[in-house]
Amino acid sequence: MRQDWLRWRALATPRRLAVLFEARSLSYAELDRLADGLATALAACQLKPGDRVATHLHSSIEAIALIHAVARVGAVLVPLNIRLTASERARQLSLVEPQLLINDNETVSTNSDSKPQETRTLADLVYHEPQCGLEPQALRPSPPQPGEPQVQSIIFTSGTTGTPKGVQLSFDNHFWSATASAYHLGVHTNDRWLSCLPLYHVGGLAVVFRSCLYGTAIVLQRSFDLEQFQRSLRQDEVTLTSLVPTMLHRLLHSSPATVWPQSLRMVLLGGAAAPADLLAAAKEADVPVAATYGLTETASQVATALPADVQRKPDSVGRPLLFTETRIADADGNTLPHGQIGEILVRGPQVMAAYFRNPAATDSALRDGWLYTGDMGRLDADGDLYVLQRRTDMIVSGGENIYPAEVEAALREHPAVADVCVVGLPDSEWGQRCAAAVQLRAGETLSHDALLSFSRTRLAGYKQPAANLIRFVDALPLTASGKIARQEVERQLRGWADSHQPKIK
Amino acid sequence: MRQDWLRWRALATPRRLAVLFEARSLSYAELDRLADGLATALAACQLKPGDRVATHLHSSIEAIALIHAVARVGAVLVPLNIRLTASERARQLSLVEPQLLINDNETVSTNSDSKPQETRTLADLVYHEPQCGLEPQALRPSPPQPGEPQVQSIIFTSGTTGTPKGVQLSFDNHFWSATASAYHLGVHTNDRWLSCLPLYHVGGLAVVFRSCLYGTAIVLQRSFDLEQFQRSLRQDEVTLTSLVPTMLHRLLHSSPATVWPQSLRMVLLGGAAAPADLLAAAKEADVPVAATYGLTETASQVATALPADVQRKPDSVGRPLLFTETRIADADGNTLPHGQIGEILVRGPQVMAAYFRNPAATDSALRDGWLYTGDMGRLDADGDLYVLQRRTDMIVSGGENIYPAEVEAALREHPAVADVCVVGLPDSEWGQRCAAAVQLRAGETLSHDALLSFSRTRLAGYKQPAANLIRFVDALPLTASGKIARQEVERQLRGWADSHQPKIK
Repeated sequence: MRQDWLRWRALATPRRLAVLFEARSLSYAELDRLADGLATALAACQLKPGDRVATHLHSSIEAIALIHAVARVGAVLVPLNIRLTASERARQLSLVEPQLLINDNETVSTNSDSKPQETRTLADLVYHEPQCGLEPQALRPSPPQPGEPQVQSIIFTSGTTGTPKGVQLSFDNHFWSATASAYHLGVHTNDRWLSCLPLYHVGGLAVVFRSCLYGTAIVLQRSFDLEQFQRSLRQDEVTLTSLVPTMLHRLLHSSPATVWPQSLRMVLLGGAAAPADLLAAAKEADVPVAATYGLTETASQVATALPADVQRKPDSVGRPLLFTETRIADADGNTLPHGQIGEILVRGPQVMAAYFRNPAATDSALRDGWLYTGDMGRLDADGDLYVLQRRTDMIVSGGENIYPAEVEAALREHPAVADVCVVGLPDSEWGQRCAAAVQLRAGETLSHDALLSFSRTRLAGYKQPAANLIRFVDALPLTASGKIARQEVERQLRGWADSHQPKIK
Repeated sequence: MRQDWLRWRALATPRRLAVLFEARSLSYAELDRLADGLATALAACQLKPGDRVATHLHSSIEAIALIHAVARVGAVLVPLNIRLTASERARQLSLVEPQLLINDNETVSTNSDSKPQETRTLADLVYHEPQCGLEPQALRPSPPQPGEPQVQSIIFTSGTTGTPKGVQLSFDNHFWSATASAYHLGVHTNDRWLSCLPLYHVGGLAVVFRSCLYGTAIVLQRSFDLEQFQRSLRQDEVTLTSLVPTMLHRLLHSSPATVWPQSLRMVLLGGAAAPADLLAAAKEADVPVAATYGLTETASQVATALPADVQRKPDSVGRPLLFTETRIADADGNTLPHGQIGEILVRGPQVMAAYFRNPAATDSALRDGWLYTGDMGRLDADGDLYVLQRRTDMIVSGGENIYPAEVEAALREHPAVADVCVVGLPDSEWGQRCAAAVQLRAGETLSHDALLSFSRTRLAGYKQPAANLIRFVDALPLTASGKIARQEVERQLRGWADSHQPKIK
């Protein structure tokens, strides 16, 4: 696979618009020059091919150039979620042992337990003065090397155990993902992809590679800000955008109302199952929603229903993309017939080869060439996929994945807590919100606030249960085998929330 | 590379339109079923992977299905030009030694010198009854096999010596060609590619693979017929078409005038350099011409200038496509600076690996990973390519390549002919027309008609010199080294034609 995609793109269409960000725009030739400067600076850090470069960055033009620069020097990108706490971050850093950590500024703390690595700010690298003897990269990228697919990045995802797992995505994975997407959604030479998803999420990263391969433009937002997003829709001749349901909900219920431009040909809606009322509101507003199902482990899309398909079957994500297969399996991995619900399995060239340094997790997820997603779904007689539930107990809130096991482990550390069960409750804006049933030790008392101040040091904000969705209970319901009966907890919390809350919006 | 593209496409989008031909339309699922029947019939012929299947077919839906069926059984397609004479055809057949020859009907003669091969009509295969024990292909294509890229077809091209050379194109070559094209021209999900180029030309074959990979439709024509083409433009919601200059000339000068539909987003114009007056007429008629440069050896496009680029620089074919490189070299292969004229060299994943059983020709054409095209051109300071002349003495007439050496060798066989020189004269409709200066043996006489009846048994019609462009001369002009002075012959013939012909249209 020819990895230095930006260089190739700059050679093919140097003058085409590459990225538009906060009123600044770069052509592919300009973005390539920026990446070249960053690559020279990285080379000065004595990085060897295969070394890992962790990043802790907000979205910016420089952050996009850095993604290409890391590829140019043959290093592996490890984009950290900037919403993590210091201890969560330290855990990921100690697992990947990066040779270099690149921050927005110097205040990012890392736990002292982790192996110390060289740390630079992105600005340092941008304004790096080439030292004597360090040549800028040669104009033409080297021809592809045969052999193992080269790893582009390691992106963390938490498993059901709450232990972070590093998904290794290769250039091959991204190439096939981008190409299968092109051959399903189409590519228009004037496409502009409005992207507000973080670059440390596969959804945001995939837009960078798609745009570069296609020679089309990214309209990048620092994050999702309703007004800025609306302004961009009005001004920037946007043709495509990727949203999670929460964002679409806000856009559809905003005041003043969102003006959806004529140029917009598709809104790729993913990250979580789209509620029926949200799709109905989108239809009402004539927003061309394409419902998609994807995972970090598959470098984004597995299946996408185009707007016309969504009109026909609003709850389906369509058939798998080209060269991609799905099947529905029972607990033993046997294929189930149409209509039956089981685990969604995926096979295709966009599926990761392994988790980073975690053979047990890899062996569990990849069997006989199939990725066991942990997500539940079914196929209909047409072969269209319906995703019924993301990984059995996973909560998706505002596009972020939350693993109850991780939240429960953090809350359980509080000395007053005996046990805890975390579930997702439906929410029309967030998709789901995190709720907790907490059983205290005999004789202990604890306030909501005290519990939350405790957990805030251990868990990123988006993983915290909502203050008004924490319920202290005398005992958690158990199954016959003595495990916590999650469905019963969910039922109880839902009933309690309905009766005690003014309204779960 | 995943070779059974039709099966994958039918799995991804079974209901999308695949092909429209003479008021008959097939979805991808239907085309896949047709190909499956043909593959079963081919399997019954005891074909082994790597065996060659020669075809001598007009364009049809079945001919498209056969291209996919040959891929499905792992055989190599050898699509013969149906305009060849029996002796030309026999020469190609004896070179490739196909296990099977598939005809439109049983009257296609082959020279008895060639090794006899099994012959079937396409209709036989379509109506083949599966024999006991022959299973239709399994629903899911097998995963890709690592190793050497698999050859999809052998397409004949004549060299400067006039000896046919078999260009071996792999699935990889076609994949990268189609993908680089998609990432330059764009893909719209509603694309319909009107194709009147023969399926035995790389231009026609490439449309089959592009459409299949993209999941878009081919509007297939049996051949270029002005009225039918105009009707299709009016009726079939065509968005793209491929034309050679002669066809575009006729469309622009027809009566009644051609109605170019709003849906048409690009006319890919290739096969020969486009005359300036043709491009001016296209601009006048607001036809969105994309000027392209491609070769059989590169599975079609190397560079393509989009319509906006053609407006800016009418005589350029733009920059090379993604992952493709061009350079201009002197006679020793040294790169020449911008602006200087030299041979066009091409490198990229769409370049063939070798000619079939012709190591001498392969070594001459491929050196250090670069394809020496034999075409002359230059690059400007922007890196845009200008093609000044196809292979030094090659004549391109109505999109067909004619090699003077081949025509001269055939004419020289006539007992009255001492020597002959064939050149191309410019023609606004045909691009070029074949003209000949013929020197007779002392004391011999020969009429135009007698010479042409002689050559008609040896050369396909499109290779014949025009009757009014044959000139009998006393002696051919020679260079200092005693070779025929081609440029001088061309100058003389051009002057003679201008003064003796009513008008070279």
